[in-house]
Amino acid sequence: MSAVRKDITAETGSNVKIDSYPSSEKIYIEGSRPDIQVPMRKITLSDTPAHFGAEKNPPLYVYDTSGVYTDPDVAVDLQKGLGSVRADWIAERNDTQLMDGPSSQFGQERMADPATEHLRFEHIRKPRIAKSGANVSQMHYARQGIITPEMEYIAIRENQNMQEMQAYLKGQHPGQAFGANIPAVITPEFVRDEVARGRAIIPANINHPEVEPMIIGRNFLVKINGNLGNSAVTSSIEEEVEKMLWGIRWGADTIMDLSTGKNIHETREWILRNSPVPIGTVPIYQALEKVDGNAEELTWEIFRDTLIEQAEQGVDYFTIHAGVRLQHVPLTAKRLTGIVSRGGSIMAKWCLAHHTESFLYTNFEEICEIMKAYDVSFSLGDGLRPGSIYDANDEAQFGELETLGELTNIAWKHDVQTMIEGPGHVPLHMVKINMDKQLEDCHEAPFYTLGPLTTDIAPGYDHITSAIGAANIGWYGCAMLCYVTQKEHLGLPNKEDVREGIVTYKIAAHAADLAKGHPGAQARDNAMSKARFEFRWEDQFNIALDPEKARSFHDETLPKESAKVAHFCSMCGPHFCSMKISQDVRDYAEKKGLKEDQALQVGMEEKSEEFRQEGADIYHKV
Amino acid sequence: MSAVRKDITAETGSNVKIDSYPSSEKIYIEGSRPDIQVPMRKITLSDTPAHFGAEKNPPLYVYDTSGVYTDPDVAVDLQKGLGSVRADWIAERNDTQLMDGPSSQFGQERMADPATEHLRFEHIRKPRIAKSGANVSQMHYARQGIITPEMEYIAIRENQNMQEMQAYLKGQHPGQAFGANIPAVITPEFVRDEVARGRAIIPANINHPEVEPMIIGRNFLVKINGNLGNSAVTSSIEEEVEKMLWGIRWGADTIMDLSTGKNIHETREWILRNSPVPIGTVPIYQALEKVDGNAEELTWEIFRDTLIEQAEQGVDYFTIHAGVRLQHVPLTAKRLTGIVSRGGSIMAKWCLAHHTESFLYTNFEEICEIMKAYDVSFSLGDGLRPGSIYDANDEAQFGELETLGELTNIAWKHDVQTMIEGPGHVPLHMVKINMDKQLEDCHEAPFYTLGPLTTDIAPGYDHITSAIGAANIGWYGCAMLCYVTQKEHLGLPNKEDVREGIVTYKIAAHAADLAKGHPGAQARDNAMSKARFEFRWEDQFNIALDPEKARSFHDETLPKESAKVAHFCSMCGPHFCSMKISQDVRDYAEKKGLKEDQALQVGMEEKSEEFRQEGADIYHKV
Repeated sequence: MSAVRKDITAETGSNVKIDSYPSSEKIYIEGSRPDIQVPMRKITLSDTPAHFGAEKNPPLYVYDTSGVYTDPDVAVDLQKGLGSVRADWIAERNDTQLMDGPSSQFGQERMADPATEHLRFEHIRKPRIAKSGANVSQMHYARQGIITPEMEYIAIRENQNMQEMQAYLKGQHPGQAFGANIPAVITPEFVRDEVARGRAIIPANINHPEVEPMIIGRNFLVKINGNLGNSAVTSSIEEEVEKMLWGIRWGADTIMDLSTGKNIHETREWILRNSPVPIGTVPIYQALEKVDGNAEELTWEIFRDTLIEQAEQGVDYFTIHAGVRLQHVPLTAKRLTGIVSRGGSIMAKWCLAHHTESFLYTNFEEICEIMKAYDVSFSLGDGLRPGSIYDANDEAQFGELETLGELTNIAWKHDVQTMIEGPGHVPLHMVKINMDKQLEDCHEAPFYTLGPLTTDIAPGYDHITSAIGAANIGWYGCAMLCYVTQKEHLGLPNKEDVREGIVTYKIAAHAADLAKGHPGAQARDNAMSKARFEFRWEDQFNIALDPEKARSFHDETLPKESAKVAHFCSMCGPHFCSMKISQDVRDYAEKKGLKEDQALQVGMEEKSEEFRQEGADIYHKV
Repeated sequence: MSAVRKDITAETGSNVKIDSYPSSEKIYIEGSRPDIQVPMRKITLSDTPAHFGAEKNPPLYVYDTSGVYTDPDVAVDLQKGLGSVRADWIAERNDTQLMDGPSSQFGQERMADPATEHLRFEHIRKPRIAKSGANVSQMHYARQGIITPEMEYIAIRENQNMQEMQAYLKGQHPGQAFGANIPAVITPEFVRDEVARGRAIIPANINHPEVEPMIIGRNFLVKINGNLGNSAVTSSIEEEVEKMLWGIRWGADTIMDLSTGKNIHETREWILRNSPVPIGTVPIYQALEKVDGNAEELTWEIFRDTLIEQAEQGVDYFTIHAGVRLQHVPLTAKRLTGIVSRGGSIMAKWCLAHHTESFLYTNFEEICEIMKAYDVSFSLGDGLRPGSIYDANDEAQFGELETLGELTNIAWKHDVQTMIEGPGHVPLHMVKINMDKQLEDCHEAPFYTLGPLTTDIAPGYDHITSAIGAANIGWYGCAMLCYVTQKEHLGLPNKEDVREGIVTYKIAAHAADLAKGHPGAQARDNAMSKARFEFRWEDQFNIALDPEKARSFHDETLPKESAKVAHFCSMCGPHFCSMKISQDVRDYAEKKGLKEDQALQVGMEEKSEEFRQEGADIYHKV
């Protein structure tokens, strides 16, 4: 397991590290109890150069998804898995019990199969389950008024304005409301209330105690999901774990494991034990493997066993296409691109073959019973999402969405956390209709969309066609954006495609956060712009979403170290620069002992004369 | 001049070609007179495979900016320049006269300078100017009710729905209104009316008869601009011409030459003589060169001579920062990033140094006189555009915008075509305010924006941060989008950056066209989606905005030729594919002799049983 990507260097065979970003330091903020330690990345900024005023620039604190892999004080052995963040919190709630072993038939078979022993994670824990009659979902606690440690952890983590948050932690800040919905300081009580209301979910299976709690809801930072998973061809377990590490390095908030190979059970265990972010799956994919790919042969029993198998491993959310009902299938016949969701087409095929209602729909209450026994969250799949601009917002899509709204009510009756998946391909002017209808039909449960792509004509650039739609729907209220890579519709993404895709989606999410007015989100933009104006090149790289790319692009034109402290950039060269002139305007005003406004607004006749006389060449020669 | 890029192969030393796209053919549509020959690219599509119904797929006609460089029947010698599209039209209006030579002092000096002879374009034409008292602007003709050949050419060119357009050309279609503003068929009269109203401009200098007429206005297709131009370092004339060819190959609708080197006069002549698209410039850049970079030394006389010099060469539109007034400069002192427009900072510096009103503002009427004598269009520069999210929509920006509205009225008094430049850096929720204010303040003159970038934190990805803003503002009514490359803020774009930037902006423009409901814009999306559903891989590549990238991404995973006719893609492999299942659903219905709806909605019990029995493996093994 030492063969990690070159960007993720293994310092020793048993200590896997993700390279941190430059000038960055892993820090933790302690909550109300010492075992609430919320990670952040602290970016140290250099001072403003003397020429610009010699100011100290405070450090920037940014949300950090990379787990302890970027903590120099923690050694991670992938063979043993991550340490536990939540085990004590789960145990002390005293509503769960340890099982002797997996209760799913498939889980038991795999445990007993000597042929898979060499693939098996060495330190498999016994699974945990709710005590008889108990409900261990965060929504259940929230509705009883309980603020869990997970909720407090999230409250701290969501704050982008460190000063306001620290004042709050010291009791100096009331945490008053900001704008319509988002408070200036995200408080634990606000988190609890949003979860109780169903407007946000905390995907955190009791069998995934390694997870660093996070929240998905429209009154919080917009999140992004990255996918991994082998396809037809074999790809090793190692590779899949490495993909997960690569994803969280660039900022994926959750990872969906969409593997379809024959060792997906074992692969999933490795991923879960080493993942600090929630893991989502589409259980129907594995169920289909169990019936050799013949959708007609699927049964409720096989599916149910798969849910339990995965829930006991620790999967945090399940995509379940329970909204694809028999009555919806005919609505897709007139489409240009039919059913493009894999889960949707499996269920459509099953419904047609049996001419009976989907077993996911008819057994939905029982699924809820499973979910609440492990706190797995629903991600109700949009099996009938449009696969083309032509099919956007049609009756098939909206019919399914209405069913998802019904199912949301059932899930909530069980206090099961629920989010709703969405499209797909949608032209810009139809994006808001989608979002508004989802909020209405699904009672404000969080929306989680794939893009949407705003045109079909740019294969090779679908990270961009979809980022346009993603930024918009995020602004309108979508809580999580599933990334799309530039290989979409064409092939499987490689490492660089994943990086490009994730960073593109971080952009979309951040553009949405700014537009929503998330408190403090603009701090990073302001820090970047100030660094830009003051020609602090190193700081510009370090504040960037992708410091390595920013630096390498700069170095292509001006490779020398000296250029990184130069008071110009390559666009206009050393002798003319518009930012430089703005600074000259300010410098001039200051030199004259005037406030800038005054210098410019009053009594300028004389000063302008001096300026001209002195200014034969006021550009600073470099 | 034969050293062209590897993507632009010179078949002979004197015949420069731009590689066309695969399965594409240059065609021309004739207007009401034989010399109106409007170019389009015809993409031939393959038939639907037998399995899917063996349908003929009609060819797709797309807008083509590549000029005769993609016409196999036309040889282009860059030394001689392109043939003339408009010379007869200009001549027959009988309102212009041929001059003996350049009337600008600088133009005369350069003509007479033996030191520049080796750089000089060989076949410089004598410039043409309006006869005394005449106004040769397209707006002037439009306001007199004259439909020029240029307007008819544009009407044909703008139509995206070939069938409707051909019916119109045959007199079978009335061209009735579509949606609020855009007619189902763009008619010459509609073009005239929009130009007369000032809602659209046709940048077409009488000294640039090589131009293939195009229009910029919000009731037409959204256009994009690509920039070229050397910076501090020398780059050769050849390179600049090649950049122009590279830009129009990927779809740039206009090119701005932002060169600042010492031979920009000569470079510009080469570009103009070989450019089928309008060329824009920022004359203050060259004026600044003439005073050795000392903004304070600029004079109205030098600037005026530069305008005439460039107008007589054939520049189609001028960016003029006449809205930067002395009173606006102090408004920028409180900004985070000051003045970031180069032209804006030059004028701000000049105003401060002289403490007097901008000479562009005070001489604006005289500038109009020059513009209408050659039909140069205004692109009124936004010298105070925000350079950061923090500075967006501030009083400096909006103060200048109001001045640009006043200037628009003055320009229109002279029947001078006018568009307005816009930001910059603007968060998503402020984009529409910008657009609405521009429409109101500037009386619906076309808006032409740089992005806008929707966040500051992603240097290295600013083509994406800005495409998000660009698609939105295009949807809201922006007429032209100035591209931003991924090197923005970091360095100078190379060839691949330009390609990526232009295609990204084609995406933004097309997403906007779809959202605006431009008639026929969706035809290309639909053709792509149909090809996708029918696994016509070659057609998918050929319909794409970047066929080469789409093909190469596909080939990375499935390189064999056979994979391009396979009924599956690499995402799900050969044995399972959701699109495949949708087709199976339709096939099944058809086989049973039922309409799809019926097959699915009624009497399915029996059929579903058959389906299951037959369906042990209904996937077609490939």
